[in-house]
Amino acid sequence: MSDFREDGALALEWVASYLERAGELPVLSQVEPGAIRAALPGAAPDDPEPFSAVVDDLDSILLPGITHWQSPRFFAYFATTGSEPGVLAELLVAGLNQVGILWRTSPALQELEEVTVDWLRQLVGLPAEFRGHIEDTASTGVLAAAIVARSLTPDRRVLVCSEHAHSVGEKAARLLGLELRKVPTDDVYRMRPDLMREHDACLVLATIGTTGMASLDPVPEIAERCAAAGTWLHVDAAYAGSAAILPELHGLFAGWERADSIGVNPHKWLGVPMDCSVLWTRRQEEFRAAFSLVPEFLRSPDDALNLSEVSIPLGRRFRALKLWAVLRCYGRRGLQERLREHLRLAELFESWVRAQPGWEVTAPRHFSLVCFRREGSDADNERLLGSVNDTGEVFLSHTRFADRYQLRMAIGNFRTTEEDVRLAWDLLRREAAAL
Amino acid sequence: MSDFREDGALALEWVASYLERAGELPVLSQVEPGAIRAALPGAAPDDPEPFSAVVDDLDSILLPGITHWQSPRFFAYFATTGSEPGVLAELLVAGLNQVGILWRTSPALQELEEVTVDWLRQLVGLPAEFRGHIEDTASTGVLAAAIVARSLTPDRRVLVCSEHAHSVGEKAARLLGLELRKVPTDDVYRMRPDLMREHDACLVLATIGTTGMASLDPVPEIAERCAAAGTWLHVDAAYAGSAAILPELHGLFAGWERADSIGVNPHKWLGVPMDCSVLWTRRQEEFRAAFSLVPEFLRSPDDALNLSEVSIPLGRRFRALKLWAVLRCYGRRGLQERLREHLRLAELFESWVRAQPGWEVTAPRHFSLVCFRREGSDADNERLLGSVNDTGEVFLSHTRFADRYQLRMAIGNFRTTEEDVRLAWDLLRREAAAL
Repeated sequence: MSDFREDGALALEWVASYLERAGELPVLSQVEPGAIRAALPGAAPDDPEPFSAVVDDLDSILLPGITHWQSPRFFAYFATTGSEPGVLAELLVAGLNQVGILWRTSPALQELEEVTVDWLRQLVGLPAEFRGHIEDTASTGVLAAAIVARSLTPDRRVLVCSEHAHSVGEKAARLLGLELRKVPTDDVYRMRPDLMREHDACLVLATIGTTGMASLDPVPEIAERCAAAGTWLHVDAAYAGSAAILPELHGLFAGWERADSIGVNPHKWLGVPMDCSVLWTRRQEEFRAAFSLVPEFLRSPDDALNLSEVSIPLGRRFRALKLWAVLRCYGRRGLQERLREHLRLAELFESWVRAQPGWEVTAPRHFSLVCFRREGSDADNERLLGSVNDTGEVFLSHTRFADRYQLRMAIGNFRTTEEDVRLAWDLLRREAAAL
Repeated sequence: MSDFREDGALALEWVASYLERAGELPVLSQVEPGAIRAALPGAAPDDPEPFSAVVDDLDSILLPGITHWQSPRFFAYFATTGSEPGVLAELLVAGLNQVGILWRTSPALQELEEVTVDWLRQLVGLPAEFRGHIEDTASTGVLAAAIVARSLTPDRRVLVCSEHAHSVGEKAARLLGLELRKVPTDDVYRMRPDLMREHDACLVLATIGTTGMASLDPVPEIAERCAAAGTWLHVDAAYAGSAAILPELHGLFAGWERADSIGVNPHKWLGVPMDCSVLWTRRQEEFRAAFSLVPEFLRSPDDALNLSEVSIPLGRRFRALKLWAVLRCYGRRGLQERLREHLRLAELFESWVRAQPGWEVTAPRHFSLVCFRREGSDADNERLLGSVNDTGEVFLSHTRFADRYQLRMAIGNFRTTEEDVRLAWDLLRREAAAL
């Protein structure tokens, strides 16, 4: 195993050094399409190469094609942080190489997954009747919820979500052959419950923290209507749900405890590396009824629930280990501190935009996302964003609402400081002046 | 970052030492259901704990609940090896923490994924018209193929597979609301093409290397019929497909190049840690038409295919990096050597069973799986398997065919030696004599 230790030291040093310099690299990759492919051999080698050759090529070939999600100046989409304990936990996960299929194929995987998602349930303040498991992404979680919902009300062929819901709703509907009903929103981008027509829907997808502008659907009223209509309610809080660990924000999550299922992604805002999306449900038995097959070759003597019985894949990685490491190494207070700092930075950025003539904040700020634009046309704003991102110093992305091209400043990386946020603002103004 | 380096050294040493002693630990976890859960705190800590505490608890709490898929004497289901370069690549993957959504969110992820699955395509001898991507598991791959197939022939509501197909077929049918047609097999467990009634099916699932006994459906005739009926053919070669890297076995894969889509799991027999399941298709444009949404907030200036447009999750991990590391660090010859050794060991084990009075090989051996049983009742064989697995020295699983309980010896871990196989055989005979 001496080679493993040597190669491992090389890999570890590479990651340590990468995390130190991630902030100095161009945030958005600047390569041309096809450039990485062209630099790689056309076929696998016939004979073994040393691991060090892989690490060398990671630097020389792949690195220019990396968009640095680990950079403190990654402000696009929603940030994700591979925190240090999370990264190292992935090494342990790979070393153990567990395959969770039945309970007995890895009792530790199954029980730690149940325990850690329950820890997180307590942190976000959901009642104990919610049982959880880990999916790869929120897309899969919404699809799974829709599958369960449709199995319960097979005659209802409609999936309802707001016009500002994440595309996961549309994708789930498309994949399952359901009709998608996009409900209009009010003046602050909240779904209009009075326009849902939920009685013929198998599933209503409500969002706390939409992708575009982090708006919040009125979940209490939606839940009330869904309960009356016998319609499954899934709350997508993939990004914002992590903020429920802050008691001062609990009001924003009112009513979600009445949902049938809820998705929150610790791989977005809680420092867990990709991928780790938690799905809780008050109706795990219905999940099991929809997904379980348990054929002969998989039958085991015990009667415990096997996590493969509540999700699409048969085998699962030991994702719980990284969630466990992160929850422990930060602790509740450590995570709360980081999220509060992100909220403070977003508020600060918002105040700068508001104070600057020629710029405007274009949607109510929720959580750590600020939507804004500069005076001028959509094309002007698009050009501005392009030139800002081309500097490589920051990476912001855009969205579209109110019939306008909108800029988004999404704060959420654990390594982001006030200085990084200020640099982004300075750069935006500088490039705007230069255009 | 000194803590990261220190903690990393701890994690690395833990994995190195674990891989050295994995063979000495009880292969099948011997804990009682609930024991791991009971040993864990009921809630996340309020304050940060050191990473070393996580590693300590990994040893003291979790390890007894681990079923050692990394053990050289893991002979259950189908083996999976987290090879050394694969394990270390996962550390790099987590450090980079890429999220592949659009090409520009990680050009290196997208292009390396395209390149490495193409390397593997060449190694298994599929034509260049096959384009591939990586799914988490074969279950998801079959579901994805069924979604595409159904989008093309929405009036056909039947999924066809053999009675010995993996449960993924049944699961995909159930999740999509399709009827499942299980086709009888012949005397060596091959699907009977003449009984498929493929004209009203949207998808036929043929298997090369079934889960039960590694039987091979007659793919050339199935492909002919599917082509004539306009029915999508998916070939599930999750386990056995890796063996197509051996030229001497190419004949077993005859006709699979006529499939519309094919699944092969490098996380089973090619040394890549969970999870890495490759899906190739000759019809990537139909995948894109079925899955792509590309909403405004995700639009990017380039026109390249984004891998999120051909699969269920929106964001993907940088799985290609581990496939790349493994293909390079073993090379074609290194992987071929390991697979040939597994085939030799399976043949050897088969010869021992055949030569031993009171034991029989119960299905034609294909690849590295031997199905066998001892004279006596199903209950006798079940008891035998239980007592063998209870020793902790090996782990075998069972299946059911020919109306009998069957034992399975599945060889596929890179660390397995002839000595390990002999130990299993000695133990089987010893426990049988003791019963």
